[in-house]
Amino acid sequence: MPGSGTYLARAALSRVMEPSDLPGLALIRVLGPWRTMRIIADYEKLDPKSEERVAYYLQEQASKQWSGITECLARWRPRLPNLSPRRDLRFIASQGGGLLIPEASNWPTALRDLGLREPIALWYLGKANGPGLSWPPLRDVVALVGARDATAYGEAVTSELSDELVARGKSVISGGAYGIDAIAHRSALKASSELTLPTIAVMAGGLDRFYPSGNQELLMEITRRCVVLAEVPPGARPTRYRFLQRNRLIAALAAVTVVVEARWRSGALSTAHHALDLGREVAAVPGSVYSANSAGCHRLLREGAACVTQAAEVLELMSPLGDIDTQRPSMTSETDGLPVQDLLLLDALPLHHTTSADKLCALAGLPLTSVQAGLGRLEALGLAQRRNAGWSRDHPRG
Amino acid sequence: MPGSGTYLARAALSRVMEPSDLPGLALIRVLGPWRTMRIIADYEKLDPKSEERVAYYLQEQASKQWSGITECLARWRPRLPNLSPRRDLRFIASQGGGLLIPEASNWPTALRDLGLREPIALWYLGKANGPGLSWPPLRDVVALVGARDATAYGEAVTSELSDELVARGKSVISGGAYGIDAIAHRSALKASSELTLPTIAVMAGGLDRFYPSGNQELLMEITRRCVVLAEVPPGARPTRYRFLQRNRLIAALAAVTVVVEARWRSGALSTAHHALDLGREVAAVPGSVYSANSAGCHRLLREGAACVTQAAEVLELMSPLGDIDTQRPSMTSETDGLPVQDLLLLDALPLHHTTSADKLCALAGLPLTSVQAGLGRLEALGLAQRRNAGWSRDHPRG
Repeated sequence: MPGSGTYLARAALSRVMEPSDLPGLALIRVLGPWRTMRIIADYEKLDPKSEERVAYYLQEQASKQWSGITECLARWRPRLPNLSPRRDLRFIASQGGGLLIPEASNWPTALRDLGLREPIALWYLGKANGPGLSWPPLRDVVALVGARDATAYGEAVTSELSDELVARGKSVISGGAYGIDAIAHRSALKASSELTLPTIAVMAGGLDRFYPSGNQELLMEITRRCVVLAEVPPGARPTRYRFLQRNRLIAALAAVTVVVEARWRSGALSTAHHALDLGREVAAVPGSVYSANSAGCHRLLREGAACVTQAAEVLELMSPLGDIDTQRPSMTSETDGLPVQDLLLLDALPLHHTTSADKLCALAGLPLTSVQAGLGRLEALGLAQRRNAGWSRDHPRG
Repeated sequence: MPGSGTYLARAALSRVMEPSDLPGLALIRVLGPWRTMRIIADYEKLDPKSEERVAYYLQEQASKQWSGITECLARWRPRLPNLSPRRDLRFIASQGGGLLIPEASNWPTALRDLGLREPIALWYLGKANGPGLSWPPLRDVVALVGARDATAYGEAVTSELSDELVARGKSVISGGAYGIDAIAHRSALKASSELTLPTIAVMAGGLDRFYPSGNQELLMEITRRCVVLAEVPPGARPTRYRFLQRNRLIAALAAVTVVVEARWRSGALSTAHHALDLGREVAAVPGSVYSANSAGCHRLLREGAACVTQAAEVLELMSPLGDIDTQRPSMTSETDGLPVQDLLLLDALPLHHTTSADKLCALAGLPLTSVQAGLGRLEALGLAQRRNAGWSRDHPRG
């Protein structure tokens, strides 16, 4: 267990810094959260040697120029008067939640793939502190995201995907919004499964208040049975910037991001682009070319997203070695694998009367030896039948 | 003009050999059509030196073993008694058609990309012999293919695509079948355009009789105003093998093959695979995951086909240098291109009351200098407004 000082410092930093504040994150990497907080609070000065290391780290990890501590402090210090990390931690604990930090063993390690953009901490409500709870491995988490104003089509697809993915042992992560997100969470909660975390919601604002308010009931149910996360502290509003940053967390926590429905411009596309940046799998569900809600999905398909139409195809993306039975009916035809000359012969065989092998030579354009051998093969397959002196086509039984 | 002997020989060979008869095609390449026909008719023997060249050519071009002239003759000679190339040429001329051969200047040169599988000749009905008619260049021909049992959705998409592609100067090629093919041809004929060949139909059987008979009227109209092609001679039945081979001609003649609707197993997929083999562009139209008629399209999308939802996207594939205006509304947002700090500031600005720059520092997590500069920029963009001593959000006009 990391000391409570680390929790306090990260709780405070999560309020002082906006998500993905790269100079701040570089400072934390170099000095640790506690000393970073001391510098912001003016208990300590940043020594030139450390500043050099921060500048180097920032350039190295994010190709971004360090603009000096003064500018950063001017950004962070206006928020100092509102800080009370103890109050925040007490509040979240009183709601049955807590703080996840990168130093702790229950930190979702998939977030490390975000590099410098790894969040300072994650506030949670729900089961993440339960005894023996471990975060599902990356390969078992799938993001289902999409339009708020989902169509009946999008809702049906989302519901089926979520239900089957959870039934197959996958956790469904989404953003708790109206539309596709809500259906994904709801179907995951309903699916029959032994999973500890069938669904995970990641919020853009603080967990003191759920947004959107119309999903209050659903999100409460998720906190009771699963977990709701946010990288911003209680009281933080869900701003546009925080929504976009939240999307990177969904993308990082999931092995595959599936966009079920999205308009040409849609937040779901930002999640998909984050996933692409991270080298995660991105998939989109196709739909009618006349549906504005599928235009974003088709845009993703053009950008190289995988086309998925059913849960089995999502599972294939999640386990590329193909240990999954795709359940696609094989739909083989009785003529599959026939050599060309037998196909020609089959085409030449009359359906309703019989003909001689000689005539078949001319009809099929084949030598007599091929016709004779081929008739034998087709007869064995139940595709040709001999009647009296001639041959006709037969249809296979079953 | 090649001599009439070449026409006669190729007319005869197109009846003796099935499409893509590789040893036969290699023989024609080495000896020419006339001497090949003499050998088949037993007027001449294949000398060992020529046989060696044929074997070498076949191996080189098709990685296929030459199995000796005897086996080939056994396949071709049963068809000799039915041969009458003069009668066939007279017949096709009487119908207002003729024979295209690779030696002639009006041969569609795109077929050369088929290598050894280039057809022996093409029988045609229609305008291909008109004065001054030249075959459209490959970049101006698009194949629209798909399911016979098209849905209303597939019909609507096909009709729109065909209409707009022809209006933009492209010829639409297809297979003359029911469903998608028929709609593609019909819409192309209706589209207003100056094109000599708005549409081209390629048949699997001989041109003495149109298949399917229900498309008789449509195909007659195509022969009157455009052109209908077949590589098999008059009288040849449209067998399964010939359908599959016909598909390679459609793929070769078009710069892009668009599959509008196709079941999981569909002839349209064979056209698409031929196009892929030829390095031509392949595109598929997405549809509902619940439509069996889109399952083949989604399969193609998974195999790497381009996702197209409108004619402009097909045109983009046809002219990759992008001289085409895609007509996609740009749908930019007023916040596009704003730096992160201005986005944070915009999020912090209250909608219905005003606030001070100092308070905005804490809300947005930005230093005062950034807030002041940012407010100036947002005001200039019409996104922020100063009222009395404070600031609030504004909405851009228009």
